[in-house]
Amino acid sequence: MSTISLTLHEIYDLALATMLANGCDDENAKALADIVTRAEQDGSHSHGLFRLPGYVKALRSGKVDGAARPVVTRRTASVIHVDGQRGFAPLAQAAGLPVLASAAAETGVAALSLTNIHHFAALWPETEYLADRGLVGIACTAYMPAVAPAGSTEKLFGTNPISFAWPRPGKKPVCFDMATAAMAMGDVQIAARDGASVPPGTGLDADGNETTDPAEIAKGVLLPFGGYKGSAIAMMVELLAAGLTGDQFSYEAAETDNRDGGPPRGGEMVIALSPAMIAGAGWEAHADAFVNRLSGLEGVRVPGARRHANRSDLGPRQIHKALIETIRSLG
Amino acid sequence: MSTISLTLHEIYDLALATMLANGCDDENAKALADIVTRAEQDGSHSHGLFRLPGYVKALRSGKVDGAARPVVTRRTASVIHVDGQRGFAPLAQAAGLPVLASAAAETGVAALSLTNIHHFAALWPETEYLADRGLVGIACTAYMPAVAPAGSTEKLFGTNPISFAWPRPGKKPVCFDMATAAMAMGDVQIAARDGASVPPGTGLDADGNETTDPAEIAKGVLLPFGGYKGSAIAMMVELLAAGLTGDQFSYEAAETDNRDGGPPRGGEMVIALSPAMIAGAGWEAHADAFVNRLSGLEGVRVPGARRHANRSDLGPRQIHKALIETIRSLG
Repeated sequence: MSTISLTLHEIYDLALATMLANGCDDENAKALADIVTRAEQDGSHSHGLFRLPGYVKALRSGKVDGAARPVVTRRTASVIHVDGQRGFAPLAQAAGLPVLASAAAETGVAALSLTNIHHFAALWPETEYLADRGLVGIACTAYMPAVAPAGSTEKLFGTNPISFAWPRPGKKPVCFDMATAAMAMGDVQIAARDGASVPPGTGLDADGNETTDPAEIAKGVLLPFGGYKGSAIAMMVELLAAGLTGDQFSYEAAETDNRDGGPPRGGEMVIALSPAMIAGAGWEAHADAFVNRLSGLEGVRVPGARRHANRSDLGPRQIHKALIETIRSLG
Repeated sequence: MSTISLTLHEIYDLALATMLANGCDDENAKALADIVTRAEQDGSHSHGLFRLPGYVKALRSGKVDGAARPVVTRRTASVIHVDGQRGFAPLAQAAGLPVLASAAAETGVAALSLTNIHHFAALWPETEYLADRGLVGIACTAYMPAVAPAGSTEKLFGTNPISFAWPRPGKKPVCFDMATAAMAMGDVQIAARDGASVPPGTGLDADGNETTDPAEIAKGVLLPFGGYKGSAIAMMVELLAAGLTGDQFSYEAAETDNRDGGPPRGGEMVIALSPAMIAGAGWEAHADAFVNRLSGLEGVRVPGARRHANRSDLGPRQIHKALIETIRSLG
């Protein structure tokens, strides 16, 4: 597939111009261009420019307000709420995360619920924001039904990602950010295109039978990672991202979304904890010894390490030419 | 295997007498007898009377103080710490959980770290305690190395259980409580005894090779559930239960434990969140609709349902005769 080389600045400018040309005001466009550029910088192409057409569709259909002004409310010393006012998630996060971080630094633990947002990005920007400030971060969000709970053949859960970051002052945090589906549907579709098979447990065909044929799974449902246990984690994510925020469960999002191809309305839950206040003095060295032991094991890569290595490369990125052309046609 | 029928009262009395006869004072013995009886009532035999010999070993070796008085400190409005003073976990939990619940009800989110405890039980008693008071509960603890991180052949993680409970006022909570190992070592040993095979991904043999022969895994290591993703969850549990509490990681517990067969010293992290304060009015019905949809799917059992069904049965329990004889010999 032919690619075009773009610097990180060019990626940012392309994203910014595209959002500005489609109804985003300056603040929203900048927040989105930032999140898209950081995804490309980290090597997460599926959360980078690839998302722009979906963002544009949601603006053009009127589902999302590109000029939304999120409203931040600090309900108690440790509970913060952001009403995204029908906007994309990044500006709402930018408004809420500093309040969450200072609340957690003061009280030791704090919770941020974001509602009335449209989330279409990775979660590590939220959890690493907290880790960069010496805090443990946990974040999760739901989406639209794609995953059948273990034992079932009917989709109910979203791919329901969860991210966790552990702070390492002066170093990159340990951070995972993963779907609770066994595999992203995009990867199943790529495997189908390439004629590859997928591991058992990835999904079911349209009749609810187990299969390793990705073309059949694409017509059926995904399964949670890790069987019954992963299904419990996926359920927890729904309950935290929708039950605890008060915004839509995945199945509700499917019922109300206008199917424009952009992100549905939903909620996000972010929790921050202070090891300095909970574990007390010496927590950095104590946890570092564990992380060093983990990273020292042959065959083990500490979660986040590959993204962080990509991040330190400030050179140009190779972007699919067809994607660039699609985006330029939206400008 | 021949069994003896014991009422729940008889189970409680047997546990109480055994603990009193081996150095527990009244308060500690009652807290332990309560946790053991509730495990048997819920059908979790592996956390019931089966644990008593290990508790006794830890008392007799002097590792655990049967007369410990936990010290509760409320560090901030939402951060509570319990120093278990080298005692078993149940009395420390009984001291800390009411403070945690009232803190979360006041501030919306609170965290309880327990350190200097010896945990040998399930985690649902902690999370369901919170759910019974209208709070979301999350709890986790580490143990001693038994599980190789994904990609490795060396054990580093404990079986690292995590529990989550969602409150349903007037109904039983949704609650899972699961090891992050693919299978408990006890179940691997039972499969080996019975000549059965175990699913791929359960563990590795002593040379680090994948195998479905439980006898070979018993000489090797367990694997996390769900491959790399489950391994990330197991790592998160270590970091919350040890890094965030400041108590021992599993590998540290292995280095300091006296190997008496009882539970090592460790930490436990419990987080409580208030949906009434975070999601606001209507949260119960909103989440209930999701849970009802989940439980209505063919083939799906909502986590916790089997335990709760067992709990409502107040009749006698069938206990292995050999176990009863072992326990009586300790009296």
